[in-house]
Amino acid sequence: MMNYHKINMDDIAYFISVVGREQVEYEDINEEYTRDEMTEYGRFAPEVLIKVINREQISAILKYCNEHLIPVTPRGAGTGLCGGSVTIHGGVLLSVELMNRILEIDVNTLTAVVEPGVRLMELAAEVDKYGLLYAPDPGEKSASLGGNVMTNAGGMRAVRYGVTRDYVKGMEVVLADGSVIELGGKIAKNSSGYSLKDLLIGSEGTLGIVTKLYLKLLAKPKKMISLLIPFNDLKSCLSIVPRILALPNRPTTLEFCEREVIEDSVEYLGKQFPSKDYAAYLIVSYSGDSRQDIEKMYDDTCRLVLDRGAIDVLISNTDERQESIWNARGAFLEAIKNSTTTMDECDVVVNIDKVYEYVEYVKQLAADYQVRIRTFGHAGDGNLHVYVCKDALPDEVWEVTVREVMQKLYDKAKALNGLTSGEHGIGHAKKEFLKEALGSRQIELMKGIKKVFDPNNIINPGKVVD
Amino acid sequence: MMNYHKINMDDIAYFISVVGREQVEYEDINEEYTRDEMTEYGRFAPEVLIKVINREQISAILKYCNEHLIPVTPRGAGTGLCGGSVTIHGGVLLSVELMNRILEIDVNTLTAVVEPGVRLMELAAEVDKYGLLYAPDPGEKSASLGGNVMTNAGGMRAVRYGVTRDYVKGMEVVLADGSVIELGGKIAKNSSGYSLKDLLIGSEGTLGIVTKLYLKLLAKPKKMISLLIPFNDLKSCLSIVPRILALPNRPTTLEFCEREVIEDSVEYLGKQFPSKDYAAYLIVSYSGDSRQDIEKMYDDTCRLVLDRGAIDVLISNTDERQESIWNARGAFLEAIKNSTTTMDECDVVVNIDKVYEYVEYVKQLAADYQVRIRTFGHAGDGNLHVYVCKDALPDEVWEVTVREVMQKLYDKAKALNGLTSGEHGIGHAKKEFLKEALGSRQIELMKGIKKVFDPNNIINPGKVVD
Repeated sequence: MMNYHKINMDDIAYFISVVGREQVEYEDINEEYTRDEMTEYGRFAPEVLIKVINREQISAILKYCNEHLIPVTPRGAGTGLCGGSVTIHGGVLLSVELMNRILEIDVNTLTAVVEPGVRLMELAAEVDKYGLLYAPDPGEKSASLGGNVMTNAGGMRAVRYGVTRDYVKGMEVVLADGSVIELGGKIAKNSSGYSLKDLLIGSEGTLGIVTKLYLKLLAKPKKMISLLIPFNDLKSCLSIVPRILALPNRPTTLEFCEREVIEDSVEYLGKQFPSKDYAAYLIVSYSGDSRQDIEKMYDDTCRLVLDRGAIDVLISNTDERQESIWNARGAFLEAIKNSTTTMDECDVVVNIDKVYEYVEYVKQLAADYQVRIRTFGHAGDGNLHVYVCKDALPDEVWEVTVREVMQKLYDKAKALNGLTSGEHGIGHAKKEFLKEALGSRQIELMKGIKKVFDPNNIINPGKVVD
Repeated sequence: MMNYHKINMDDIAYFISVVGREQVEYEDINEEYTRDEMTEYGRFAPEVLIKVINREQISAILKYCNEHLIPVTPRGAGTGLCGGSVTIHGGVLLSVELMNRILEIDVNTLTAVVEPGVRLMELAAEVDKYGLLYAPDPGEKSASLGGNVMTNAGGMRAVRYGVTRDYVKGMEVVLADGSVIELGGKIAKNSSGYSLKDLLIGSEGTLGIVTKLYLKLLAKPKKMISLLIPFNDLKSCLSIVPRILALPNRPTTLEFCEREVIEDSVEYLGKQFPSKDYAAYLIVSYSGDSRQDIEKMYDDTCRLVLDRGAIDVLISNTDERQESIWNARGAFLEAIKNSTTTMDECDVVVNIDKVYEYVEYVKQLAADYQVRIRTFGHAGDGNLHVYVCKDALPDEVWEVTVREVMQKLYDKAKALNGLTSGEHGIGHAKKEFLKEALGSRQIELMKGIKKVFDPNNIINPGKVVD
């Protein structure tokens, strides 16, 4: 571990000279900057919080901190779930929340050029004015795009459109020594040397700090229709997923949930859900330019699921009906959080034909350990969110239980050739599990890469592989 | 530069002990192994040619060569265009041509598992039996999939489906020290540490040797219809491309060509082309599950282009008619090669709304230097193939001309925020241009990464950034 320099008033004076007094906080820093959405992984106060507004400020700060061995942790909206944006080694918390300008919507190259602090919902609203779509659709709409890119966030529409990685055409990055590089841009293809852009995507702010993003846009389909498909048992529900995905028309989303999660959500929101009498549900949606087109798309799906155990297919073709489903789906995480004293979560990804086996294993674990576990997720991607709930368990029981259960959850994913994280990332909370999943040789390579980009280990230390 | 060990009979004996006598050649090695498709970039005889059949052999050879400082250059089908698979520092040429088994077509996870020596056309034929599609579609169908992945090959269908990178779900790789790592797999999403997989894609065999690939498959659309759209001038032809791409239905391919390239191709193939009376053409194709669906897709396109200067829209909705177009398109490169004594080529990528400006610049260069230059390419991706032809120019004129013209071609791409290569890669032939395009800081990072993977610089030395 590095011997980091403790920030003193000379350093503060330098930071103020770069960004102005208003943008530097070093006393009474708001509690929200000590953590992300998972307070369970601890609170870590930064020595100083700096809200930068441009590339030049970031460059000057990194150069200074690199020379003075001061850790710098970049932060977007702070909505992460693995402690990726918290200052576990103190130092500077460098917030890009004020770098929130949409710089350009280029309709010729179908590119949005944005600063990293722009929030997902802000970009969605802006491109909508042009009849365009930014396809990635992570659940947390107030997340920053910089954060989305740094965790390679996924989201509901990944089934049809892919993940954030697939929509990053280019980026401008400040490196640890303060130098600035431009990777890709508005171009559509690139085979020009190692893809540093793809290395940066998903690197959780450990290799450099993004100051500009070039994001790919699509023509926006005019309409979406969602199907809510109830099943009497989880096996029929999940086993049919690969067959739906093999049909000629790929759905836009393909989620699954069980009755108990819907009940949590209905209680939390105080709003009704179209159906909650059955054991398990698929939520499948299709998008296109007209109702007729979309009906044609889901015709085969209806036939297939009704043939193979679905109770019914509830078609939501009005905005109101769809909202009742998607609002509930959007509230699953908050509803579960709200239902328990504390919890831990995992975000494993397995092959799409192993989802049932995995979820059954989770149920067995819950029974064996007498702990409540909730699961839902992106059935169409094999990406599951599993929440182990403390409820009224005594602390000492909880500590042992959660440790053992989490270990087994990751072990099982590995046994099924799955991996540690489908979309949330590693941060500092999941490092040990990553190591076990990838083995020492891959971790060694990643550490080597980190050293190439950041030889003094000042950018976001203690994360991912450090 | 490293001081490489010259291969002696002891080394040969070791190689024979690993792979057997039959698979080791060290005398009278066939000329085809001294080069790729661009003989213009020189011939380099390997000291020994080894045809491996499995991972274990590759691991043993790399371990030995790493310890003995012997260069190892991996080779697929040898169809590259930048000298990426030639032994410019001698040593071992490690051919994976016999590792050509399709190991599995997994219809549940829509994954093909293949060895790196499988050829593009072989996989296409195999997945077709399942009604599936491997979407990347580079022009050279006899290329190996390992080579395609290592150059991040693009191809005709990239407009709709993306490039090879987007279809690599996982890979098994042998590193320089002989250790084996598994990156990704059949999973659909991954945010588990730095994406070594994406770093390997496009690394042109300089970071490790791929022994297994997990490739993403799609449901295959049942039908394709191609439109041949003639224009009286190049400007109208190319200026309309961004507008076609912004329509709700994205075409599968969007190519452009000029009369002169069609004439070369007609002469070369001895076959007719549906139209060759106009200055410039777009070839736009759409795919879907029925003729009606596809007609609906291209309706808007027809209206748009006829409104804005197109002479006509020739619709090819039979296999025969489409073949006459696509066979000609497929023969452009060979036809140009055949029309000249020798040539040099570039594969720049620019923003899709800069293609016209770039092609006009190329024409001006041809006039200024009194040299014949042919251009065609993937208009929908901004990826252009430019061929500078020697014809009857005297050697000493040609040498100066080609050097200056190539430099200007790359300079212009850079001035337009474009890059060195859209899909062919860098190899050893384009290294200097890559350096100029990316700048020293990015090259430094890439060299650092190379060193992490291959500290003794034995895998494919002299390529990309070495």
